[in-house]
Amino acid sequence: MAVLKAETVLVTGANRGIGLELVKQLSNSECPPAHIFATYLYSNSAQELQKLADEQSVVKMLELDVTDSASIQKAVETVEASLGTTGLNLVINNAGINSDATLETLTADNLMAVYRTNVVGPLLVSKAFLPCLKKAAHALHLEGMSCNKAAIVNITSIVGSIKLGQKNFSRAPMYPYRLSKAALNMATVCLSEDLKQNQILCTAIHPGWVQTDMGGNEAPLSVADSVSSILRVLASLSQSETGKFLDWEGKEIDW
Amino acid sequence: MAVLKAETVLVTGANRGIGLELVKQLSNSECPPAHIFATYLYSNSAQELQKLADEQSVVKMLELDVTDSASIQKAVETVEASLGTTGLNLVINNAGINSDATLETLTADNLMAVYRTNVVGPLLVSKAFLPCLKKAAHALHLEGMSCNKAAIVNITSIVGSIKLGQKNFSRAPMYPYRLSKAALNMATVCLSEDLKQNQILCTAIHPGWVQTDMGGNEAPLSVADSVSSILRVLASLSQSETGKFLDWEGKEIDW
Repeated sequence: MAVLKAETVLVTGANRGIGLELVKQLSNSECPPAHIFATYLYSNSAQELQKLADEQSVVKMLELDVTDSASIQKAVETVEASLGTTGLNLVINNAGINSDATLETLTADNLMAVYRTNVVGPLLVSKAFLPCLKKAAHALHLEGMSCNKAAIVNITSIVGSIKLGQKNFSRAPMYPYRLSKAALNMATVCLSEDLKQNQILCTAIHPGWVQTDMGGNEAPLSVADSVSSILRVLASLSQSETGKFLDWEGKEIDW
Repeated sequence: MAVLKAETVLVTGANRGIGLELVKQLSNSECPPAHIFATYLYSNSAQELQKLADEQSVVKMLELDVTDSASIQKAVETVEASLGTTGLNLVINNAGINSDATLETLTADNLMAVYRTNVVGPLLVSKAFLPCLKKAAHALHLEGMSCNKAAIVNITSIVGSIKLGQKNFSRAPMYPYRLSKAALNMATVCLSEDLKQNQILCTAIHPGWVQTDMGGNEAPLSVADSVSSILRVLASLSQSETGKFLDWEGKEIDW
């Protein structure tokens, strides 16, 4: 079975849920990355990540507000200073917010706030780290695309599938979240097309309905199982999966 | 051939391009609506609409900023005062802005501005006029759904198709616009599911690549041809097309 061998990885929203588990499993893997940049928004909700960083020297904590260009720029500088001439192999855009807003309760403010974090954030982060990703893509003389070489992975959701919306809308009638994930899926396709020439892979991953703060207790999938499966999928991605929408088991989802 | 017979119609962004032509053709049709509410953002760019309103008494001009809740509320009050106990049959969310921003030039500001006008706008307008649409749906004892009874039509674009993005991205690498139209398509599906119970149809229409300020001179389709075709399609819509993404000739487009 393929194992992820990216030397340098950045995970946004790594202080809890899927992001934290990604950092945990990556740092505990057979061949852990040399650097895992784990970003968080507020230090007072990052105690568990802090504990992990204290135990695992490969984990580097990084304060980052994905909605703030200045904060992103500062993070890029920190990462570049830390990596020196080495590039960044893998950016996992995991930071995201939910909103329960239905048609009844949606407002311009909740629509805009969710779009800003879930769509504008990943795009600004991807764009800002592009020089680092390009450096990694050029440095490694690996054939084809992969997450070991240079990749952007966007954590999206099946409720961002417009086609499946007609089936699953009533179970999750949250407009701001659904719209943001559909737009993030479009961003994934745009980035995959734009960055093909640079040998940078870009894929959207639905992590499943997971027992996190966002997913709730009723969710059927544990965070650990979702993440271990996602990491197997990431290890197996090649150019045939760039621009695709896959679930945690690698199954393709309709747009 | 089916002819649109909606008694009351509202068209946003009606001061130019497709919006203006919709109002022109509707007011000049065999059985024109009794009321066409034609909204515009700035009066200094609405001279042609003003001329049309002077000639055609069914055309009522309405100042409306689709990004401003207070402006929308004022428009609802004006429409309700004008209609009395009659409902509103058809809302055409046509107002939209473009942005040429590519990956190189995209910013949080241009992403947010395009989302606000192209996605938040149509949702807020639809939500605000929902009581008027419901009134129309209940008043008319027509079987099934139609644009003659109660409907929301969102003017979207083929570049909002995520699936087709892999084919047509390089010809139109505009991130803010593409993302907004994908999100608007998701909004169309959400609204169609939400409003089925109220017998309100909701469909997304791609008008083709049209010779407007937005489409440019190279576009192969005249505004008049696009709009006459769109109006034929609207006249033919039934519950089987609610939640669909159709082009100006009624052909279904992949999400």
